[in-house]
Amino acid sequence: MEKLLNGKFVASSIIRDAKNEAGKLRRDGIIPKLKIVRVGERKDSIAYENAIIKRMDEANIETEVLALPEDIDQSNLIKQLKKLVDSSSVHGIMLFRPLPKHIDENEIKFVISPEKDVDCINPVNVAKLVEGDETGFPPCTAMAALEVLKYYKIELEGKEAVVIGRSMVVGKPLSMLLLRGNSTVTVCHSKTKNLSKVTKRADILVAAIGQPQMIKKEYLKDGAIVIDVGINVDSSGKITGDVDTQDCLDKVQFITPVPSGVGSVTTAVLAKHVIKACKLVNRTVR
Amino acid sequence: MEKLLNGKFVASSIIRDAKNEAGKLRRDGIIPKLKIVRVGERKDSIAYENAIIKRMDEANIETEVLALPEDIDQSNLIKQLKKLVDSSSVHGIMLFRPLPKHIDENEIKFVISPEKDVDCINPVNVAKLVEGDETGFPPCTAMAALEVLKYYKIELEGKEAVVIGRSMVVGKPLSMLLLRGNSTVTVCHSKTKNLSKVTKRADILVAAIGQPQMIKKEYLKDGAIVIDVGINVDSSGKITGDVDTQDCLDKVQFITPVPSGVGSVTTAVLAKHVIKACKLVNRTVR
Repeated sequence: MEKLLNGKFVASSIIRDAKNEAGKLRRDGIIPKLKIVRVGERKDSIAYENAIIKRMDEANIETEVLALPEDIDQSNLIKQLKKLVDSSSVHGIMLFRPLPKHIDENEIKFVISPEKDVDCINPVNVAKLVEGDETGFPPCTAMAALEVLKYYKIELEGKEAVVIGRSMVVGKPLSMLLLRGNSTVTVCHSKTKNLSKVTKRADILVAAIGQPQMIKKEYLKDGAIVIDVGINVDSSGKITGDVDTQDCLDKVQFITPVPSGVGSVTTAVLAKHVIKACKLVNRTVR
Repeated sequence: MEKLLNGKFVASSIIRDAKNEAGKLRRDGIIPKLKIVRVGERKDSIAYENAIIKRMDEANIETEVLALPEDIDQSNLIKQLKKLVDSSSVHGIMLFRPLPKHIDENEIKFVISPEKDVDCINPVNVAKLVEGDETGFPPCTAMAALEVLKYYKIELEGKEAVVIGRSMVVGKPLSMLLLRGNSTVTVCHSKTKNLSKVTKRADILVAAIGQPQMIKKEYLKDGAIVIDVGINVDSSGKITGDVDTQDCLDKVQFITPVPSGVGSVTTAVLAKHVIKACKLVNRTVR
């Protein structure tokens, strides 16, 4: 049996559904639209932007990019964002981070209304995640990991899930999503003592550390399901995850590779979120 | 050595500090004030109200109660709350829950501004808890458990903490607070399989289940620190926790009893929060 969980299959399935929904909305005269807001010209942001545009296109979702100068001031950025919030033709807003240092993200995050906040910047969406309120938008990457588990029909209830990492984009939100799925959830981090002892308990192990290939087979119990959320670029430009996939392959039941794992699903989740946002607002309007 | 962690000592220490701060504020002409909003005449709410009034009095904080009729409608309740939000003499607002069924709490929770939301109803405070932003107000009961650990100088960093229960008032917020303290945190719940196996890993075990004396010594590892957040009333009217204290006493390093444990600290934390709210707003005004 194939042990590698292929993120591309997961993404295709999500995109197929999103495209189907987009078609229905378009027949009703509604064109689902994502607005990307990019401040500055970071190379990684532009690469991500291109990947998003391609993906939205596959899902029949329109994408527009608002590229703003690196030195835009706080009040001007807020003004631009407010325009998008007020525009009835924009359904989802994706603001790339990190923002330049002179911008106060603590103020910005409230400006993007929860209903258009497709990547969980607004505190209301953070709270919905904790409350288990499914009308919110969890961060796309955390949700991508969950979609992989869902696609491969991996039961969460009663399982021991261990998440390594406690970031606001993966570790914490994913622990909330696994808890919502009735797993028993442990969150580990840099101050965890005897990490491998903790990770060895995991039926489902999620690595979101940012350390290339740190997780070896000694960290796993036999038959574990391993979800690798890490995306690291080594000195030769090769992309690797937080897990040493080859080393772990014999021991796992399933594992997501990097590339072609969770990372492939993130933009598909974004498409799903744009459709959800579009349907939410149009339900309200009618 | 005494194994019982006395919540009354913790509360006294917090109240002493709060009173000291209240004195300073009063010398500056600011009278710290808590407004309790009670809808209906629930007996448990009135008992809690009396306990709060007494405690605020000890801390030299003014308390006023706004008692509203059980059948008040949504828009009227919102109007009343908005008045308190706008009043410069009110620093903290404590709305008792559960609210009557005809009231939509999902709307109400946004009305109490985050700055006066001393018991974490507003989603902004929930998000701050997750983000580790200390300007927010965690739920008083969750914070009370943390204050006990702090008072008794129990190190959190690197410890295995296990929380049983995933409510929005204790389980989830306390798991976030323990994570902020650099513990490795596991959240268990009704769907956890083999609960005692999980709880036996705990250096620090938090019980917030709502099942009288459910936790026996078989659930503990030797030398565990046990924090009992349960408050259950048995058929004879006696108050018990979620932990069978007598049964566990030999095995633990420390344990909080019920009564005189965490419950005694909750209203003290509320006083601390009112002072914090009062200082926040007056820092902004100046």
